[in-house]
Amino acid sequence: MLVDGHPFRTVWSDATPDGVVRIIDQRKLPWGFEIEALRSVAEVAVAIRDMHVRGAGCIGSTAGYGMWLAAREAAGSEARLRELADRLIATRPTASNLAWAVERQFETLRGLTAGKWTEAARAEAQSIADEDAAWCHRIGQHGLALVEDIAASKTQGQPVNILTHCNAGWLAFTDWGSATAPVYAAHRAGIPVHIWVDETRPRNQGARLTAWELANEGVPHTVIVDNAGGHLMQHGMVDLVITGTDRTTFTGDVANKIGTYLKALAARDNGVPFYVALPSSTFDWSTRDGVRDIPIEERDGTELSVVDGLARDGTVQEVEIINPGSPAANYAFDVTPARLVTGLITERGICEASQEGIASLFPASEREPAVSG
Amino acid sequence: MLVDGHPFRTVWSDATPDGVVRIIDQRKLPWGFEIEALRSVAEVAVAIRDMHVRGAGCIGSTAGYGMWLAAREAAGSEARLRELADRLIATRPTASNLAWAVERQFETLRGLTAGKWTEAARAEAQSIADEDAAWCHRIGQHGLALVEDIAASKTQGQPVNILTHCNAGWLAFTDWGSATAPVYAAHRAGIPVHIWVDETRPRNQGARLTAWELANEGVPHTVIVDNAGGHLMQHGMVDLVITGTDRTTFTGDVANKIGTYLKALAARDNGVPFYVALPSSTFDWSTRDGVRDIPIEERDGTELSVVDGLARDGTVQEVEIINPGSPAANYAFDVTPARLVTGLITERGICEASQEGIASLFPASEREPAVSG
Repeated sequence: MLVDGHPFRTVWSDATPDGVVRIIDQRKLPWGFEIEALRSVAEVAVAIRDMHVRGAGCIGSTAGYGMWLAAREAAGSEARLRELADRLIATRPTASNLAWAVERQFETLRGLTAGKWTEAARAEAQSIADEDAAWCHRIGQHGLALVEDIAASKTQGQPVNILTHCNAGWLAFTDWGSATAPVYAAHRAGIPVHIWVDETRPRNQGARLTAWELANEGVPHTVIVDNAGGHLMQHGMVDLVITGTDRTTFTGDVANKIGTYLKALAARDNGVPFYVALPSSTFDWSTRDGVRDIPIEERDGTELSVVDGLARDGTVQEVEIINPGSPAANYAFDVTPARLVTGLITERGICEASQEGIASLFPASEREPAVSG
Repeated sequence: MLVDGHPFRTVWSDATPDGVVRIIDQRKLPWGFEIEALRSVAEVAVAIRDMHVRGAGCIGSTAGYGMWLAAREAAGSEARLRELADRLIATRPTASNLAWAVERQFETLRGLTAGKWTEAARAEAQSIADEDAAWCHRIGQHGLALVEDIAASKTQGQPVNILTHCNAGWLAFTDWGSATAPVYAAHRAGIPVHIWVDETRPRNQGARLTAWELANEGVPHTVIVDNAGGHLMQHGMVDLVITGTDRTTFTGDVANKIGTYLKALAARDNGVPFYVALPSSTFDWSTRDGVRDIPIEERDGTELSVVDGLARDGTVQEVEIINPGSPAANYAFDVTPARLVTGLITERGICEASQEGIASLFPASEREPAVSG
């Protein structure tokens, strides 16, 4: 997708055997656009844990490339490769694509002689990233049909108002994004769309990343506080909600950025369709009850109490925004029960958020290895 | 209530006929505690509009004292007094107590000879403030019973977890607060309570004001993002929600800080009781359909895009926290339909959020003059 008119992906590698992994450091956006080079598994782990990269697909692709570095560092030891794999998986407990990409690499490599690991791991990392981009592109095409249907019911020229939470844009994947893929598809097809961008506290991925993405692609949008979506839905100002997900159970329960559940409740209360977009790499094929069993990451309270932004002197500065000394709790995700989800937009099409609906597109025989909670 | 161990009210006046109105400038909290002197209706209007003071009861009390200054400035002209009254009412369109206090003063003064205006207006302002404090104290006693009931069902020593949104604390009233009155009553009665404090974007009244209040009173609390409440309720970590309101229709629809509706939906979905605390001065006796007819104030988008906080050098600084150039919309309130409200805690007791429930405590014959939308 475009950054200042130039096409970018969120993660890529040098083509040489001793090359590095390159990522966009998302902590610096929207005020700085910096490419970071990751030279070791340790650096990849820090980049994922400290959210230089974030978002379901982008974490998966970055971890895929991380396993390329792991293949080099393991120097032929499968035990060491396993250790490095586990180290990557441990960085973010809720993300499903992370374990999916790492295990996919591990399964590929353990079947090969060690001499082929590095080359095979780089090819597999490239495949994971390319598939992510291709899947998200297909999600966009399937979601486009939903947007077209709503557009057809509107007065000519009136935009389709789509609300999204957090950043499930191309920064959260390798390209296109999940929730934003239908938006970009519709915008490029000439359908007028307007995006309500949830700020997404505490890390403000909506206000910082989604707004930045949409502005770079020229998509009309308005940033709102996370509190506003219910009011907008009550007054007919939202036609469609599309969010991403970090893990979706095979029964359709959706783990996503904290606050998604509240938007799903408001959508249900106001008859607004609530869709979740995901490539199948985000499915958790082994967990049935998402609310009970998906581990919810608790992060440091300073992510809430301290915010960085652009100061009047043009520098990026941190300020503390809560009462000094008051404790803060920081739950990073919540789980939206399947009953509140109108449908899932996947690379294979749109299905009901239910075990039956998901199985109709992804029969057990065609699933990638299960990710356990 | 206590500030650094010393008792304060949110608004008061000098006892002299040419004295000034004094308020706590809430924009400076929690990093600065500053008393501001208001010397004219114009200054009172600015203080209300620009939120030096905010919160249902505090706006009402400040407007009541503003009418004391108006009585002096009108110099015997009822037409001029009316102009000044309208100027005060126009400062915040959603707040019910504002019009209530101003009209109460106007009705009192128009029945008197002009020579008595100043003295009568000051006495009436004092009454409005004293009543607000007394009513909130009674709200605390009625709400205490709810907290006691929950405490009785808990393992000994386990705190009652109460979630609140925005600041309906003593800063939002003249004293005690509405939503916090039961909290302070329970805390003083030795019942262990723990408050989940919604940050309350965009102006962060929870993180800044409610947390500051609770810390000064020694009440255990934890600040969370507005997105977190649903997750906490799903996991049994909230026993009770209590919020305030800026206007409640005679049918029980509750206008309150943007985002309240989302918490009410989550409470309903999880079987958590959702109470709204209000003195009767907040009732709007003329509006039936709150969602449709209560005017929702739209404020400047910079309240969302720019935040102030404590910088590392100890100064309070503003930083811009959204993508530069992206537009922001700022709806200040939403309306929670009566069907989602478990009950209303008023100075006369607790009632159902319905026309019948409210009329049972406040028969038509005992109502203050209607506030029109």
